[in-house]
Amino acid sequence: MSAVVGIIMGSKSDLNIMNDAAEIMKAFDVEFEMTVVSAHRTPERMFEYAKQAADRGIKVIIAGAGGAAHLPGMVASITTLPVIGVPVKSSNSIDGWDSILSILQMPNGIPVATVALNAAKNAGLLAVQILATANHELTKKMQAYKDDLRLKVEESAATMDQVI
Amino acid sequence: MSAVVGIIMGSKSDLNIMNDAAEIMKAFDVEFEMTVVSAHRTPERMFEYAKQAADRGIKVIIAGAGGAAHLPGMVASITTLPVIGVPVKSSNSIDGWDSILSILQMPNGIPVATVALNAAKNAGLLAVQILATANHELTKKMQAYKDDLRLKVEESAATMDQVI
Amino acid sequence: MSAVVGIIMGSKSDLNIMNDAAEIMKAFDVEFEMTVVSAHRTPERMFEYAKQAADRGIKVIIAGAGGAAHLPGMVASITTLPVIGVPVKSSNSIDGWDSILSILQMPNGIPVATVALNAAKNAGLLAVQILATANHELTKKMQAYKDDLRLKVEESAATMDQVI
Amino acid sequence: MSAVVGIIMGSKSDLNIMNDAAEIMKAFDVEFEMTVVSAHRTPERMFEYAKQAADRGIKVIIAGAGGAAHLPGMVASITTLPVIGVPVKSSNSIDGWDSILSILQMPNGIPVATVALNAAKNAGLLAVQILATANHELTKKMQAYKDDLRLKVEESAATMDQVI
Amino acid sequence: MSAVVGIIMGSKSDLNIMNDAAEIMKAFDVEFEMTVVSAHRTPERMFEYAKQAADRGIKVIIAGAGGAAHLPGMVASITTLPVIGVPVKSSNSIDGWDSILSILQMPNGIPVATVALNAAKNAGLLAVQILATANHELTKKMQAYKDDLRLKVEESAATMDQVI
Amino acid sequence: MSAVVGIIMGSKSDLNIMNDAAEIMKAFDVEFEMTVVSAHRTPERMFEYAKQAADRGIKVIIAGAGGAAHLPGMVASITTLPVIGVPVKSSNSIDGWDSILSILQMPNGIPVATVALNAAKNAGLLAVQILATANHELTKKMQAYKDDLRLKVEESAATMDQVI
Amino acid sequence: MSAVVGIIMGSKSDLNIMNDAAEIMKAFDVEFEMTVVSAHRTPERMFEYAKQAADRGIKVIIAGAGGAAHLPGMVASITTLPVIGVPVKSSNSIDGWDSILSILQMPNGIPVATVALNAAKNAGLLAVQILATANHELTKKMQAYKDDLRLKVEESAATMDQVI
Amino acid sequence: MSAVVGIIMGSKSDLNIMNDAAEIMKAFDVEFEMTVVSAHRTPERMFEYAKQAADRGIKVIIAGAGGAAHLPGMVASITTLPVIGVPVKSSNSIDGWDSILSILQMPNGIPVATVALNAAKNAGLLAVQILATANHELTKKMQAYKDDLRLKVEESAATMDQVI
Repeated sequence: MSAVVGIIMGSKSDLNIMNDAAEIMKAFDVEFEMTVVSAHRTPERMFEYAKQAADRGIKVIIAGAGGAAHLPGMVASITTLPVIGVPVKSSNSIDGWDSILSILQMPNGIPVATVALNAAKNAGLLAVQILATANHELTKKMQAYKDDLRLKVEESAATMDQVI
Repeated sequence: MSAVVGIIMGSKSDLNIMNDAAEIMKAFDVEFEMTVVSAHRTPERMFEYAKQAADRGIKVIIAGAGGAAHLPGMVASITTLPVIGVPVKSSNSIDGWDSILSILQMPNGIPVATVALNAAKNAGLLAVQILATANHELTKKMQAYKDDLRLKVEESAATMDQVI
Repeated sequence: MSAVVGIIMGSKSDLNIMNDAAEIMKAFDVEFEMTVVSAHRTPERMFEYAKQAADRGIKVIIAGAGGAAHLPGMVASITTLPVIGVPVKSSNSIDGWDSILSILQMPNGIPVATVALNAAKNAGLLAVQILATANHELTKKMQAYKDDLRLKVEESAATMDQVI
Repeated sequence: MSAVVGIIMGSKSDLNIMNDAAEIMKAFDVEFEMTVVSAHRTPERMFEYAKQAADRGIKVIIAGAGGAAHLPGMVASITTLPVIGVPVKSSNSIDGWDSILSILQMPNGIPVATVALNAAKNAGLLAVQILATANHELTKKMQAYKDDLRLKVEESAATMDQVI
Repeated sequence: MSAVVGIIMGSKSDLNIMNDAAEIMKAFDVEFEMTVVSAHRTPERMFEYAKQAADRGIKVIIAGAGGAAHLPGMVASITTLPVIGVPVKSSNSIDGWDSILSILQMPNGIPVATVALNAAKNAGLLAVQILATANHELTKKMQAYKDDLRLKVEESAATMDQVI
Repeated sequence: MSAVVGIIMGSKSDLNIMNDAAEIMKAFDVEFEMTVVSAHRTPERMFEYAKQAADRGIKVIIAGAGGAAHLPGMVASITTLPVIGVPVKSSNSIDGWDSILSILQMPNGIPVATVALNAAKNAGLLAVQILATANHELTKKMQAYKDDLRLKVEESAATMDQVI
Repeated sequence: MSAVVGIIMGSKSDLNIMNDAAEIMKAFDVEFEMTVVSAHRTPERMFEYAKQAADRGIKVIIAGAGGAAHLPGMVASITTLPVIGVPVKSSNSIDGWDSILSILQMPNGIPVATVALNAAKNAGLLAVQILATANHELTKKMQAYKDDLRLKVEESAATMDQVI
Repeated sequence: MSAVVGIIMGSKSDLNIMNDAAEIMKAFDVEFEMTVVSAHRTPERMFEYAKQAADRGIKVIIAGAGGAAHLPGMVASITTLPVIGVPVKSSNSIDGWDSILSILQMPNGIPVATVALNAAKNAGLLAVQILATANHELTKKMQAYKDDLRLKVEESAATMDQVI
């Protein structure tokens, strides 16, 4: 089966962050692809990627970038697919503020679904939630995932009660 | 047909902003509902809304709030549906920074798809894009919408060329 | 005797910060309880905790959280007890700004008594001051605590005078 | 009966903000006093006010100030009473950031219960909650106040449902 | 003679700012063109503009945009020409911070010569200075322009001396 | 001869920063005293220090503090002497922003001469400049100090010329 | 008698702010001069002003500027006199942050005594305090000025007591 | 052949950053010079450097500085050459914000071409682009440089494809 989620990043140095999105794909058995597409160093590649994604079967694009992070917004300008933006606190970023603002503050007409700084895991979960709107199996898995989050908190609460 | 998009806001004073999302729903012929749900003043109502939304047929929730804006994140913590957060520059907000950060910076496990400050229109468009992942008709409408954006820029460029 | 101060935190990783509040409770002989309650991963547990706290004898709640920190404000929305919020500079926080703003900037009607970033010790002291409004013994202890702060500064001044 | 809440402000120009705290006192039938005490222009008056407040029967102090806002923290350094700080967005403040940081970021040992920018109403409500920890009548009134907040949201939701 | 400076902007609403660059071109007798090119609404037009500019004789591009301002950086990624970026404090910008950071913080390899917020006049002057590196006539005009700036300050100083 | 410059700090932990001011005093042969005075933990000591400084022969006070840094402003409110404030990036400070704003943004009537973050050396130099307004010897030393700064830059430029 | 305080500003448009410093000079009977000196448009004039000020009898320089405000720091680099910097929230400033940071954050060796945003009145008072270190008459006037500040607060407190 | 690009910095400690600009000069075979010129410690040297640069054959000046970074703007005020400013995150800078704002926010009339924080490499590339407007050989080299950037991304994408 072909990939339905495309994970792209502006630089290979973003991989240690963006890999969290890939891990979610694997955990939810969602087919995905992952590659480097730089808006600034490979603008034509970015253009082609965004233009062809839907035709290749991609349904959601997750794009991570740092600093003056144009990748998510530019891809969103070219495709009709929902684009999830991950602001990366890269080495050239000012504490992440530039990454956040240049992804979040898109003009009217071209949304980017922005998640928290470095939150590629949440980007992955959001992609699953989007796919789940038409896939009951994924909804059930998402409910199980949330149940698991709850259980882990309850367990850590239990251990803390023993500590005091 | 019942609503598939739920638009909620923390206060009726957010309506002048959030109405832009409703306008997009109308423009794309997407059934929606719109109401006030305050995380802080009606926590039980918020809880119920989030808990029952999926069963009532809602597929995407758009939630707008300002200041310490907890509505989008709290709704996302309760439902498995994708939640789009609109940071509102309300009268009690510090230039919007509190609204943005308290919606965007969700912890791992619970994403909120955040759009730009006051960008309820983009929240509406993102909701349409999400629905369009399983609805080819909406994809075509979205493409037409983007074509229209392009045409308007080209027209305004044409008038400017006459100005110089 | 049962706990009169409830110390809760969004994640067990906040314990190293929030423990400072517990230390104050011990120093002032105030009964307390401490546990993990996540607004986002255990919303129902949070709801129950806030709803039942007063009936269980709790008089003041201290809640610490980081990033999009909704725990203090959400607990405050459910209980009539005074809630002290501790913004935690957690690993997913942007230098603490998100933690501060999402706790401090509560809308009219639902206050959270916010203390400085990571200042769980001050949260503990504030809880004691609140209890002391109806407990003369605690007032005397608080005065002694402040006298001690003063003495320590005077001592450190004395050593510095020898240094120059 | 003598005042149990003292409302002070750094300048008479803060009165239009701080009056919201007085209105809450009236609504909850809590005796209060209100005056101008400037940390910078009347340091001795500030010192005397803080030193004598508890002996005069004051149980909670609400202090509002803007810019380099030292009044709440300095009063807290002198008294053992809980001090609620209201950061005022005064004419000499930089969008309120200076007011917030110079009230919130108190060192260990001397807490100030900080509320949102200009949120004197919430300061009043917090004072009531503090007094209510030893006054069941006030607790009931606070519950009624919260019920009223809820009803108003439900009413505004009802009118919105008619609008769509 | 054909245009050597291309002035582009993301939206016609930026014209009132960007016109200051055009005025400088006229004052220095530099041929220019001015049009609307939106990175987000007309990505292909942007691509074409950037790709063809040098071949059409353009030597410097001035690009203004606001919010998540991707136009200057994306044009710089496609052309080898120097690109001057003007951060515009547009209606969807957060006090200009997003405009500045998303233009200024370009990654290594793709510079954008950023000027101050709304400073299209300075963008124009910088373009003249760049052209002047190979045009002695423009250098002389620039020296005269600076002499004029100096004279105006001296005149305003003279009037002030009379005031005191 | 008795001290003419008083160097005070809110906590002994500020000594490693504030010592730079003392070093300048020694370098310029200016008599000084240095001690710990905490506005929040020793408000009466602070009051006394500020009240008596002029009578003891002090002509300039240098006060360093971090976080909600009230020491410089409070001392300035009590004395007529010029007060130089050093914002310290202490462990409880948010990157220094709270220290800067709570020292710099004093209301009309009560100035504090604020220097850069952690810049106790510049506070010392400013104190010398202030004393030099009535002491020609100090003016000459200050000129020599500036000449030395210049020479060091010229030397480092000379070594760099050899490097290239 | 010749001027002992020099008030300079980067642009005549800063006069409405900087005039507050002149008013203080008049109130304290301190001889002053006031003129426009632009670091950027009249660098040689700035250089000459700073170089000759001390020889002309000036003892303190007050310099106001906005945006990238280089005037105070550059004057301080040339003269040995104490320089007081007034960050002006000019029309080209980003809420005053650029003005503050470019005046305050001087490197080691070259202090500027920075006052609050737009606080030319405080700059004037600081200049008087500096002169007062060698002028007992000015010290007495400064004490009277502070007494007057106190009286005005006490009067406004008296009127408020009547209001409640 | 004599230098056409002048690289200057406010302190030798900026060399590890500014050397990236020198490396670009070497890579593109552009003659350059590099030295230390401090606006604050050597104002006359700075004045002379800026005044004579054009006559010595310099066509573009790259100036790096941190904190209250006045060097780029002051040099721009004296010369008619294009000046590229590099905000350096020096040890006395507040996360780079002061460096950026004091370089970027120049007033109308005196532009500085600002690049990203610490981006001396981009300053070098921008200088080459400026020279290339009158040098076809440099344009070809710049195109080759961009091609190389593209190739490196494509290669890193290829390796990532093997990783997944």
